[in-house]
Amino acid sequence: MQNFMWDGASRVIFGKGTEAETGKWVKKYGGTRVMLHYGGGNIKKTGVFDRVARALKSEGIDMVEFGGVVPNPVLSKVREGIEFCRKTGADFILPVGGGSVIDSAKAIAVGVPYSGDVWDFAEGKARPEKALPIGVVLTLPAAGSETSQYTVITNEKTLLKRDVVLENNEIIRPKFAILNPEFSFTLSDFQTGCGIVDIMAHGMERYFTRVKNVDLSDKLLENLIKSVMKNGLIVMKEPENYNARAEIMWAGSIVHNDILGVGRGGDWISHRIGMALSALYDTAHGATLSMIFPSWMEYMYRQYPEPFVKLAVNVLGVEYDFESEERTILEGIRRLRDYYRAIGMPTTLREGNIPIDNFTKVAELTEKIGDIKKIDNKDVIEILKLAQ
Amino acid sequence: MQNFMWDGASRVIFGKGTEAETGKWVKKYGGTRVMLHYGGGNIKKTGVFDRVARALKSEGIDMVEFGGVVPNPVLSKVREGIEFCRKTGADFILPVGGGSVIDSAKAIAVGVPYSGDVWDFAEGKARPEKALPIGVVLTLPAAGSETSQYTVITNEKTLLKRDVVLENNEIIRPKFAILNPEFSFTLSDFQTGCGIVDIMAHGMERYFTRVKNVDLSDKLLENLIKSVMKNGLIVMKEPENYNARAEIMWAGSIVHNDILGVGRGGDWISHRIGMALSALYDTAHGATLSMIFPSWMEYMYRQYPEPFVKLAVNVLGVEYDFESEERTILEGIRRLRDYYRAIGMPTTLREGNIPIDNFTKVAELTEKIGDIKKIDNKDVIEILKLAQ
Repeated sequence: MQNFMWDGASRVIFGKGTEAETGKWVKKYGGTRVMLHYGGGNIKKTGVFDRVARALKSEGIDMVEFGGVVPNPVLSKVREGIEFCRKTGADFILPVGGGSVIDSAKAIAVGVPYSGDVWDFAEGKARPEKALPIGVVLTLPAAGSETSQYTVITNEKTLLKRDVVLENNEIIRPKFAILNPEFSFTLSDFQTGCGIVDIMAHGMERYFTRVKNVDLSDKLLENLIKSVMKNGLIVMKEPENYNARAEIMWAGSIVHNDILGVGRGGDWISHRIGMALSALYDTAHGATLSMIFPSWMEYMYRQYPEPFVKLAVNVLGVEYDFESEERTILEGIRRLRDYYRAIGMPTTLREGNIPIDNFTKVAELTEKIGDIKKIDNKDVIEILKLAQ
Repeated sequence: MQNFMWDGASRVIFGKGTEAETGKWVKKYGGTRVMLHYGGGNIKKTGVFDRVARALKSEGIDMVEFGGVVPNPVLSKVREGIEFCRKTGADFILPVGGGSVIDSAKAIAVGVPYSGDVWDFAEGKARPEKALPIGVVLTLPAAGSETSQYTVITNEKTLLKRDVVLENNEIIRPKFAILNPEFSFTLSDFQTGCGIVDIMAHGMERYFTRVKNVDLSDKLLENLIKSVMKNGLIVMKEPENYNARAEIMWAGSIVHNDILGVGRGGDWISHRIGMALSALYDTAHGATLSMIFPSWMEYMYRQYPEPFVKLAVNVLGVEYDFESEERTILEGIRRLRDYYRAIGMPTTLREGNIPIDNFTKVAELTEKIGDIKKIDNKDVIEILKLAQ
C-alpha cells in the first residue's frame, strides 16, 4: 500500500514516515502550543515520542506533556487534563496512542472551554459548543477513534462507562490523524488481538440490523471483516508484515468513521455489555468483545435470523445448510469463536478472568439499547450465562 | 435504506425529503445570498426548483438564479457565472443538478475571488487560495462531484476538457450535498445509463493499477461495482424503485470521494480519451466511457494481466479458465460490453455517432497519463480502432 492522504471525515495522513508531518498539520489547524497526550510511556521506548516532538519543534510549536492515560480511560484523569491544559495554555491536543488516549484527549478538548463539569455532557445536562482542536498520531489500530466523533470514558465513582459527548459531537472529531502502520509492529500479541476483535466488532455491530435493503453496505462490511480476519492471522505470525498491518490500520479507521455503516441501524449490545465489564473489572475492551459477541449471537439469532445466516455464509465461509438454517448459524458462531481463539483471545468469561457471580451488577451497568432486540436486565444475564 | 447524515468528505444529507434542509445548511456555512446554479431547466418541471427555493426562503436566504449549464460544461459559461456572482453579490453557490452543474459551480466558486482568469488554474499559472462555499442538491447520480474536489470544464477555444483546479483543490469540495434518490426517478433511460457507466468507471479506473497489496480496497471496489451493476438492471425496469436508486446514488458518492481508492494508483486513461471525445463531439461523458473502457481493456491486458483477470472473475462472474488466462480476460470484456448493451449504452464509436476519421485529433487532445501503461498518441489511436 502506498502512502496517502484522505481528506475526509478526519484528514488521514497514512504511511511510513508520515509522523514527520505532525508539526505541519498542527500549524494548519491553528495550534501554537500542543498538549501531547499519551499513555504508559511506551511511546518513549519505541522512539515515537521523539519523532513527534522533533516534528513539532521543526515547525516552532511549543509542547507540553501529559501522560499516564490508562486503558479504559477514566474521568478523573480527564478532569486533571482539563486543568493541565488551562494552566499551561495549550491550544491544541495531540493524543499519541490508541483509542484510550484519543478518547481521553477528546473529552479534555471539549472540557477545557466549558465552565461546568465535563460529565455534564454525558448526562445530557449541557450541550457542548466548543472544543480545542485535536490531531492524532495513532499507534494502536482498534477503536477507530482517530477519525470518529465518539469518546468513551469511565466514571470511576458510578462505574458508568459512557459516550461522553452526546450532542454536537462533530466538534471533537480529530482534524487530522497520522497513521503509520509501522508503529503497530511493536504491539504485544494481546494488544494486536484486542485491536482485531474491536475492528471486527465495529463491522459486526453495524452489520446486525433489522433495516432492509442495505446490500451495498452489507457487502462492504462483509469484505472489510473478512480482510481484517485474514490479515489478523498474518500479523500474529509476522508482526512486522507492513502490508497486513496497513490493511488492518486502514480498516480500523474506515469501519468506524461511519461511511460503511450509514443508512442502516446497528445493534451495539455486545459493546454495551463489554463496556459494563470493563468498567467493573478493568478488562481490555477487545477481550470483552471476544467473550460477549458470540454469546450475544447465540442468544439473539432466533429473533431475526437473516443477518446471522449471512454472516455465517458470506464472512465465515459456512456452507448454507438447506435442511437447517439454525445449523448454518451455529456453525458460524463456532467458527467465530475458533477465530478468536486462533488469535489468542478469550471466548469465555473464565478465560478472561471475569467473576461469574455478579451478573446482576453487570446488567444494571449496561446501557439498554439494541437493534435486533432492545434488551433488558434479564437478557444481559442470559447472554453472560452463555459466555461463562 | 434509512435517511442519514454522513459528516465526511463533504457532509452528506441523504434520503427522502432532505431537500427541505437546504436552507438550514446554507446558513450553517455562512451563506446569505445564494446563486442557484442549474442546467436546462428540468428542475423547474420536476418541482425540485420550487422545493429548494422554498427551503431557502424559509431560512430567510436571498436567492439569485443562474441556469443554462450544458452537459460537458464550458468555460465561457463559467466566466459568465463568475461575473454574475460578482454583480449580484452572491456569497454561496448552490448547484442543483448533476456533475456538469456541480463542476461548473466549483469553477465559478474558485473564480469569483480571483482577479485573473479562472483558466489560469487549469494551466498551473496560479494557485487558488480561496473559493466561495458550495452546497449541492444532487439530481443525477453519476460524476460523484457532489463530494469530490474535482471539476472538469471544457475550454471551447482549445477543445481541451480539463480538471480546472489542480492545486489546493480541497477548497472547492462542497460543504454539504443533499442526496434524495427520488430526484433520480424522472431521469431518462439514457441519463440513468450514463450515470451507471460513470460510477462503474470510477470504480474500475481505481481498480486498474500496478500497485500491489491493496486487497481490502480491491474487495470494496469489486463489491461496489457489482452492486451498481445489479441495481442498474433493476432501475432500467423499475425507474421508481427507491432502494435501487438509493444504492446507486450512494455508490456514486463514495466511489469518488476517494475513500475506497486510497493507497493505490488508478489508470484513468478511458476517462481521458472520453474527455477528448466529449470536447470534440459533445458526446455524453458516460457514453464515451461505455465505448472506450472495453477497448482500452482489450488493448492493455497483456501489459499487466492481473487486475483484468480479477475483474473478470470477481466482478463479472467469469469462471477462471485454468488453460487460458487470456480467455478468462476476454470473456470478462465480452460480459462488460454485454452489460453496457443491456442498459442501452453504446459500445462502439459508430453506435455513439462518433466519426472514425479523426483519431489523430482525439489522440492530440488526450492527456497522456496511465497506470497500467503511460500512453502516447499511437496507443490512443489503437484503442480508438478497437472501439470502432
